[in-house]
Amino acid sequence: MRAVDIIGRKRSGLELSAEEISFLIDGYSAGTVPDYQMAAWAMAVVFRGMTAAETAELTMAMARSGDQLDLSAITGIKVDKHSTGGVGDKTTLILGPLVASAGVPVAKMSGRGLGHTGGTIDKLESIRGFRTELTTGEFIKQVNELGLAVVGQSGDMAPADKKLYALRDVTATVESVPLIASSVMSKKIAAGADAIVLDVKAGGGAFMKTVEDAERLAQAMVAIGTETGRHTVAVISDMNQPLGYMIGNALEVAEAVETLRGSGPKDLEELCTTLAAHMVVLGGKAQSFEEARLLVQSKLQSGEALAKMSEFVAAQGGDPAMVNHTELLPKAPYQLEVKAARAGYITAIEAEELGLAAMHLGAGRPTKEAEIDHAVGIQLTCRLGDRVEQGDVIALLHARQDGAAESRVAEAVRDAFLIADAPASARPLVLSVVTKDGIERFG
Amino acid sequence: MRAVDIIGRKRSGLELSAEEISFLIDGYSAGTVPDYQMAAWAMAVVFRGMTAAETAELTMAMARSGDQLDLSAITGIKVDKHSTGGVGDKTTLILGPLVASAGVPVAKMSGRGLGHTGGTIDKLESIRGFRTELTTGEFIKQVNELGLAVVGQSGDMAPADKKLYALRDVTATVESVPLIASSVMSKKIAAGADAIVLDVKAGGGAFMKTVEDAERLAQAMVAIGTETGRHTVAVISDMNQPLGYMIGNALEVAEAVETLRGSGPKDLEELCTTLAAHMVVLGGKAQSFEEARLLVQSKLQSGEALAKMSEFVAAQGGDPAMVNHTELLPKAPYQLEVKAARAGYITAIEAEELGLAAMHLGAGRPTKEAEIDHAVGIQLTCRLGDRVEQGDVIALLHARQDGAAESRVAEAVRDAFLIADAPASARPLVLSVVTKDGIERFG
Repeated sequence: MRAVDIIGRKRSGLELSAEEISFLIDGYSAGTVPDYQMAAWAMAVVFRGMTAAETAELTMAMARSGDQLDLSAITGIKVDKHSTGGVGDKTTLILGPLVASAGVPVAKMSGRGLGHTGGTIDKLESIRGFRTELTTGEFIKQVNELGLAVVGQSGDMAPADKKLYALRDVTATVESVPLIASSVMSKKIAAGADAIVLDVKAGGGAFMKTVEDAERLAQAMVAIGTETGRHTVAVISDMNQPLGYMIGNALEVAEAVETLRGSGPKDLEELCTTLAAHMVVLGGKAQSFEEARLLVQSKLQSGEALAKMSEFVAAQGGDPAMVNHTELLPKAPYQLEVKAARAGYITAIEAEELGLAAMHLGAGRPTKEAEIDHAVGIQLTCRLGDRVEQGDVIALLHARQDGAAESRVAEAVRDAFLIADAPASARPLVLSVVTKDGIERFG
Repeated sequence: MRAVDIIGRKRSGLELSAEEISFLIDGYSAGTVPDYQMAAWAMAVVFRGMTAAETAELTMAMARSGDQLDLSAITGIKVDKHSTGGVGDKTTLILGPLVASAGVPVAKMSGRGLGHTGGTIDKLESIRGFRTELTTGEFIKQVNELGLAVVGQSGDMAPADKKLYALRDVTATVESVPLIASSVMSKKIAAGADAIVLDVKAGGGAFMKTVEDAERLAQAMVAIGTETGRHTVAVISDMNQPLGYMIGNALEVAEAVETLRGSGPKDLEELCTTLAAHMVVLGGKAQSFEEARLLVQSKLQSGEALAKMSEFVAAQGGDPAMVNHTELLPKAPYQLEVKAARAGYITAIEAEELGLAAMHLGAGRPTKEAEIDHAVGIQLTCRLGDRVEQGDVIALLHARQDGAAESRVAEAVRDAFLIADAPASARPLVLSVVTKDGIERFG
């Protein structure tokens, strides 16, 4: 078998066999298939696509390429959740306690963020004392006892995916549905997931700008799940504005706690109950989505979800007082007002711009080595569709300083709000759900 | 400017600017654009193609990447000729003296062969004493005095093309018309051509299997010529059988001499007079193709073309007696008969198979380092359309030995002849001519 022939077959539009895909990925991991052959192959995939069988084989080959987490010592169906990423996305902080309180074990491995704001691990580290490094033994024990643990990525998980992703990033081959889908799924499978709920964002602040593209990606990931025996459901949600009001690490923890208390922003609560309900169904704790939704809502209302959050934080060495009194979380010394440039209706809030602005305040990492400032961030004080007058406060910057840099950020934040004379037509937050049986669309 | 963005623009089907193409090629030469980015770009080109302007810019960037031959000290329009390669192709040996005798200076830089049979340089080295290494000064002086010199490639001509071609070879990106066209033309332009006649083969023994593909390649090369100010004409000729009867270095020299004498195979003579006439027109020594054709035919008939061959061989240190008495050329000790397996009409002669067979006899190089045996080769004793009886001799192997290896070669040669009950419909040797004004088709 020669890599050049495999590339040639893909270029010609032929389906690659499992052996051919393994040959490429194993060889790429081992260094016998060089970057330039993988780059040519990836570009051929951009144009030719991949069948469901090819995509599943690629996923498994990448999952096999490094360490794989064995979660078999944890009782129950381990349901993992993945978000394609969005600005102000604190769903993991809410879903973990919520789903665990409904009886589904959550053994979550999570990442640090690069760019925008921090990742889930960075956000949790806003809580004094919180430990994100557990041994595998501690991790499994905690999930069995408490139903929930969240740790930073350790070991060498799916290194072939990491290597291929880095290559795609510099060869203009990122934008390929099967390559994106297999990248996501390989990491989830290596992390030991039995079943997977995907939160796929669509809109201005997301990688997938249109619902159609988001659905295509979701279908590809669900198909991989089906092919590899991991029951997978994808929820397509709107990312035409940030999720909730808060962008920034400690700010997002506080908003997550509010939501677990039942008094969070409605959009955030709706998305979280939807995702949680799908996780509960896949985890075998409810027969139907509706039954699961009622179950997770009862866990919010009863305070059990919030109690689970406190227990979980305490179990990992964090100060549970910070959960019960979020005013104890790190606080930035300055709150700078951002005011509407004109009167009208807010027709768009460019989430990507706000993410960049939050990074410039210190909430995210411009480079891998940068330190995160947990306290800083952006607080929106209005939403899509709101009517504002000129000079109304539309956002607050939680800033470390009040200098020229902050003024520039304030300008960028102001420009991220599009204000028009008439309100734009609204669309629901949850746009569609993709399962192996098809697509259900809402609104 | 970033290579990844340029790749992305090509992937999206946009036209690259001259600056972008230079950035890629200059960077690739300098090592700042790595193989993996060029591989991804090349695959994007396979799918998206290139405009005439892009292809011309790529050609010039590659031509500029290394040494460029300055032929300005040679009087007259320097017309170069390039063949896309074929088995038994000895046209350069004939065209050089023929065109020079018609008054067009031929300053030819030629290559050694890899695979099949040798290149023009290897063929000329069949002649005792022939020197293929001249200094630039000697080379130019000889062309000015004699109208003709042929030297081996020296210096570092179009190294970016060499590097890119080697990369394409292992990334399944060889088959792209603009990449093939720019590769050919960059070398011709670096070698100092003012005008170019292209001999593009179509058929089983050629890289381009169909006339349509050959014409597309020809059009791309002619367009490059137009864009870069090098008047270019392409002749599409049939390669459904080897050109002439001889395959092998000394055998081909002998057949070339026969043709210069006016008694060569008709197909070879026809192609050579056609190519020569186009060269004469581009060289400004005739007003029309017809006038040029009559002129070169007169040079064959008068013996001037043959005399030019002798002078040329003598000038480069070769023994001119070998031109006048080709029986003095190196001769293989064995002539082994290959006999028809059945009676019928010869409907195809697989040139590629014969080329490989000749290589196995020692006429070509399986590897760069291999030594060529100038004496060995294959002599066909029949042509497409001929009627043969079972056991008729259809070819002679000129072999160094008479062993098991030669028996295997004989079998392969026999199998290269397809014999059927009825003759196949014939097509003319010269199929079409592509100029900047369009395509003229024959037959």
